[in-house]
Amino acid sequence: MNTEHGTESSHGADDKVPVAIVGASGYSGEELVRLLLRHPRVQLAAVTSRQYAGQTVAQVFPRFAGYPTARELRFVEPNADVLARKARFVFLALPHGVAAEFALPLLKQGCRVIDLSADFRLRSATVYREFYGHDHPAPELLEQAVYGLPEIYRPAVKGAALVAAPGCYPTSILLPTIPLLRAGFIETDSVIAHSLSGVSGAGRKAEPDYLFVECNESLRAYGLPKHRHLSEIEQELSLAAGLPVTIQFTPHLVPVNRGILTTLCTQLKAGLRDTRDATEVSRRVADCYRQAYSAEPFVRLVEEKRLPDTKNVVGTNYIDIGWRFDPRTRRLLVISAEDNLVKGAGGQAVQCFNLMNGFDETTGLM
Amino acid sequence: MNTEHGTESSHGADDKVPVAIVGASGYSGEELVRLLLRHPRVQLAAVTSRQYAGQTVAQVFPRFAGYPTARELRFVEPNADVLARKARFVFLALPHGVAAEFALPLLKQGCRVIDLSADFRLRSATVYREFYGHDHPAPELLEQAVYGLPEIYRPAVKGAALVAAPGCYPTSILLPTIPLLRAGFIETDSVIAHSLSGVSGAGRKAEPDYLFVECNESLRAYGLPKHRHLSEIEQELSLAAGLPVTIQFTPHLVPVNRGILTTLCTQLKAGLRDTRDATEVSRRVADCYRQAYSAEPFVRLVEEKRLPDTKNVVGTNYIDIGWRFDPRTRRLLVISAEDNLVKGAGGQAVQCFNLMNGFDETTGLM
Amino acid sequence: MNTEHGTESSHGADDKVPVAIVGASGYSGEELVRLLLRHPRVQLAAVTSRQYAGQTVAQVFPRFAGYPTARELRFVEPNADVLARKARFVFLALPHGVAAEFALPLLKQGCRVIDLSADFRLRSATVYREFYGHDHPAPELLEQAVYGLPEIYRPAVKGAALVAAPGCYPTSILLPTIPLLRAGFIETDSVIAHSLSGVSGAGRKAEPDYLFVECNESLRAYGLPKHRHLSEIEQELSLAAGLPVTIQFTPHLVPVNRGILTTLCTQLKAGLRDTRDATEVSRRVADCYRQAYSAEPFVRLVEEKRLPDTKNVVGTNYIDIGWRFDPRTRRLLVISAEDNLVKGAGGQAVQCFNLMNGFDETTGLM
Amino acid sequence: MNTEHGTESSHGADDKVPVAIVGASGYSGEELVRLLLRHPRVQLAAVTSRQYAGQTVAQVFPRFAGYPTARELRFVEPNADVLARKARFVFLALPHGVAAEFALPLLKQGCRVIDLSADFRLRSATVYREFYGHDHPAPELLEQAVYGLPEIYRPAVKGAALVAAPGCYPTSILLPTIPLLRAGFIETDSVIAHSLSGVSGAGRKAEPDYLFVECNESLRAYGLPKHRHLSEIEQELSLAAGLPVTIQFTPHLVPVNRGILTTLCTQLKAGLRDTRDATEVSRRVADCYRQAYSAEPFVRLVEEKRLPDTKNVVGTNYIDIGWRFDPRTRRLLVISAEDNLVKGAGGQAVQCFNLMNGFDETTGLM
Repeated sequence: MNTEHGTESSHGADDKVPVAIVGASGYSGEELVRLLLRHPRVQLAAVTSRQYAGQTVAQVFPRFAGYPTARELRFVEPNADVLARKARFVFLALPHGVAAEFALPLLKQGCRVIDLSADFRLRSATVYREFYGHDHPAPELLEQAVYGLPEIYRPAVKGAALVAAPGCYPTSILLPTIPLLRAGFIETDSVIAHSLSGVSGAGRKAEPDYLFVECNESLRAYGLPKHRHLSEIEQELSLAAGLPVTIQFTPHLVPVNRGILTTLCTQLKAGLRDTRDATEVSRRVADCYRQAYSAEPFVRLVEEKRLPDTKNVVGTNYIDIGWRFDPRTRRLLVISAEDNLVKGAGGQAVQCFNLMNGFDETTGLM
Repeated sequence: MNTEHGTESSHGADDKVPVAIVGASGYSGEELVRLLLRHPRVQLAAVTSRQYAGQTVAQVFPRFAGYPTARELRFVEPNADVLARKARFVFLALPHGVAAEFALPLLKQGCRVIDLSADFRLRSATVYREFYGHDHPAPELLEQAVYGLPEIYRPAVKGAALVAAPGCYPTSILLPTIPLLRAGFIETDSVIAHSLSGVSGAGRKAEPDYLFVECNESLRAYGLPKHRHLSEIEQELSLAAGLPVTIQFTPHLVPVNRGILTTLCTQLKAGLRDTRDATEVSRRVADCYRQAYSAEPFVRLVEEKRLPDTKNVVGTNYIDIGWRFDPRTRRLLVISAEDNLVKGAGGQAVQCFNLMNGFDETTGLM
Repeated sequence: MNTEHGTESSHGADDKVPVAIVGASGYSGEELVRLLLRHPRVQLAAVTSRQYAGQTVAQVFPRFAGYPTARELRFVEPNADVLARKARFVFLALPHGVAAEFALPLLKQGCRVIDLSADFRLRSATVYREFYGHDHPAPELLEQAVYGLPEIYRPAVKGAALVAAPGCYPTSILLPTIPLLRAGFIETDSVIAHSLSGVSGAGRKAEPDYLFVECNESLRAYGLPKHRHLSEIEQELSLAAGLPVTIQFTPHLVPVNRGILTTLCTQLKAGLRDTRDATEVSRRVADCYRQAYSAEPFVRLVEEKRLPDTKNVVGTNYIDIGWRFDPRTRRLLVISAEDNLVKGAGGQAVQCFNLMNGFDETTGLM
Repeated sequence: MNTEHGTESSHGADDKVPVAIVGASGYSGEELVRLLLRHPRVQLAAVTSRQYAGQTVAQVFPRFAGYPTARELRFVEPNADVLARKARFVFLALPHGVAAEFALPLLKQGCRVIDLSADFRLRSATVYREFYGHDHPAPELLEQAVYGLPEIYRPAVKGAALVAAPGCYPTSILLPTIPLLRAGFIETDSVIAHSLSGVSGAGRKAEPDYLFVECNESLRAYGLPKHRHLSEIEQELSLAAGLPVTIQFTPHLVPVNRGILTTLCTQLKAGLRDTRDATEVSRRVADCYRQAYSAEPFVRLVEEKRLPDTKNVVGTNYIDIGWRFDPRTRRLLVISAEDNLVKGAGGQAVQCFNLMNGFDETTGLM
């Protein structure tokens, strides 16, 4: 294979930011590897995995064997000191609770850290304890962490040392809901979020529940009624609404590899709800979303007859948002579609990375 | 192939009821063929299909080639007079609007009719017109038709000449909701039904939307906000509640062949909602469901840690129902799983057929 | 749920044979549970599983919760003495190498044993060692075991104390090939068998290779070039041909739950190959298959335009066989389709069980 | 949505080649749209579709709605004169027989044409007639057309006015087989090609055979024994071998969206076959492939324990090739994996386009 091709060489080495991925063998980690290998401003300097230490990226992920870096770079055991010498940015794609241990020494040694776990998404160590069942491992960092949803926290993300990239379910709920709450359009206790997730959302766990035969031709809800991600979703919705918001959240596992489809059902506030003209309601909702997102590179408003479909976003960093007003019930239905591993994980993290470096926000993501 | 085997010969010919299926080439029709070929008290006397007239059942559906009847019986053009001479019971698996035309002459000639379309499910020709966009083709039959949900209308089904078997979505919503409404447990304006349907629910339509490539790795909502089936669902819920009920219904298409999973979100009424003890709420809901369904052969209450999963009901006439009380929101979540082509179509029709003949209700369905 | 329904009560308890399943928690074991619960002449007396000991069948397999036996019968630790007291027939659905240990004590205590593993399929302990990499654990039983392919060994199966039911790949290759070899139609060194297997063929192993995300949208060959099942396939083909047969066998894993499709490519012998009239060749092949299988209840010859498709056999004990003569290459192509868990495992075992008991061979399998 | 992002702006308009796609609404056409929208040296100037004329690319393919061009460019009726004014290169993604009509006027008006149909792949109008059942519509162009397999015909492709890009099956068979034939390693009458194709290979045809329910959980062979693509495959293999080659080809349809996996079984020639040392055989085969492909950017040799898997190539222009020598049968097994819509269609066409323009061959394809 000719090694002289590909996007890797399109910038000089000096232009490139050395980055590391800790926990690169899960599905989010693999997606980060994919995005960073093709990112024109990144030099992938280190990848860690206890399980695959010693093997090259190409051996573990044969799909990347076309990249020279993938054929040369070997997984190593995770070690914060070593990583800090090799990389200026470190992505943590570790299970909850483990990420925090790595963040502290890396930050101390001057790395900027983008964490894909839930460890730094909550502002309150108390809420963390309630939902995760143990004390937060590094509560002193909670204040410093920025919630890595660029559409909401862009200025803060740019300057952050520690970014907590939100997960797939939160992104699919927050982006369609926050503008409605900020505009005061919906009752704060009326949000019912029904989500469908592809199986990669469960991670690369060798558990019977996620075997092909158990997932194929199967539809199931799980984690009812109190899913862990509720904590960060409600935190962010409450901030947007300016008062405590509690939502209903029902996640489901469905047989696709990738994609989250969230259908939100909300009650409009009295003023809007009582508008006799349904078209007027739709127009005001459309205006609200356009005002929030028309300049956003990764939010696509679906304003046509069709509704969002995950197949239109899989493999991309887009989130598609569509809506319908139901004049019979006076409820507003909003539907979002995203790729759980891109806008819901690795892509969002790279979007933050681009902001933190002053790059065009879409670099490496189109 | 030895033709002497199989359940077909387990009863004498005299014991068997001659039946016909009109429109036997769609997915519901095919499922009826499957169930009736193996039914010990049925002689499949005629099957109709304009498209396949002249071909044997085994040629059109090779999976049934093991049945002698399937190798001998040929599809014919639909003709009510001919069918009335051959069959005592006629199943109509036709598109909406067409079924009514056949029902009238068949009933006049003394056949008993089980219709799988929506034509006779509504009591009001006005509501039919509102939801289906045209006048009802045989309004005089609406009063006589019995809604074929045995768990709710068993006595009436037994004596009916014309049964309107409910469809897949209505069954998946009505069976879990009616007991709660009858018991006065939930607010009548609070029912939000979120349903996932396998692709066979769309019928054997050669349309691009249902091609493998368009459905596989795709998740999408459709038909929002006013799906036709709302009319019969709300009719039956209103009858159960004793006052008008309007619900929110969001159907989705997901990549499985068969199965419907419905997740219902409802607000408990003040008394129950304010009960401080969540266990007490759960116990009362469980009692309500047990009282309604503990003697039902095809309703399985899922009272364990696991939640309903369509893979446990596919190919069977069961509907599985599970529930969770959410103490955070005081809402009750109820989940049902069924096979859209069995309990949601052909199996339910055969269950009605058994009742109409005085057979054990489970005959041919276990 | 009403417990009075179902096929379980269709025969008196005295008519029923008490049976046990050892290793009932894998996919083959689960399929045996399904088939034996609905078998009218069987009383399922014991099921074993180290992993699930203490739980009921219905808890482990919710899909069977409609059967009273499934709600009452609990998995136990495997113990040959206990099983021998409870059951007259014991099905072993254990990994290779383990089954042999159980067979010996069970046979000594008078049980008849149907083993679904490969342990007793080979006649030679030397070949076993070559392919399985260790000494045979009970070589003294090899002579007594009968290869449980009823279409080939029906008389011997009837009287056997120990039946070694062939697996899914061997069945899919042997049934289409043996008649051709016996008739001397094909060159014995020309058989190339290309097989596609659904993922359940890999068993319920919690390994990353069989996760949904790794199998869905994936096509791969595996186990090349010397798959273990070659040993029994070549043993049986050699017996049919009367001289040593070596074949090429290329198994593939494809994303379906169930089903094996085998495409065989063979060279016709000189006489047939040189027949100028292609129709004449096809006619002779058809005659050969009809002579072998026209009285077989579970072999369906596909003699029409269409070719076998696994979707026509899934959930059944049928194997469909079709063929094409290629006049360009003078080769004969034969295609077989079966359900790997039914005709390729549990169904075949029950077919043997029926024969061993003198029941109609199709009892419980239609 | 911010329209200033994306790769579209990474080169100045002057650098860009105006191109058109005729028949852009099928799956190959859609893939071309995807690849050309993100190609840094292409300006997508026109797309045609009778069915979608008047609609924008983004309306027909919502997944591309992030590209400004997709939101602005509308499908038009196909008209060679109009296209010739707008584009310097025209891709034809039309059904067989139709493409030829367009090629002639486009070539006359100075366009360079890359045809994805089979119309110009054969050198002989007689063979075309034999396999396609009608006279070739433009036989005078057959001599001028270059078979667009860059790995085999790179120099000719560079200067061609008319390129006939080979389809998915031919590519998957030719690239692994040609080096072996050129090296004289295999018997020319021994090639047996068994291929599995994803459903997109059948095109976006609204036929019942390709509905989700008919393909999902289905495995089937089709088109046996004389598939149309045999004509071009055997033409190219004969050219490589220097004598007529006839192969066996058995295509299968399996439930994945994309991907072709081809398993080739061939007989080594006497010299190699009789080599006692299996390692020596493997080494010589490896050398043969390395010599042929080590400088090729899109051919990846899989020389490890794992075998090719379509999931490693889906979405890319790679073809992965692996092999095994079977010392038991002295046969060589070779396996290739590609994306039928990329290396098997649109990607290959763009690779040719890059060569024809003197661009780096991988431009827009990494």
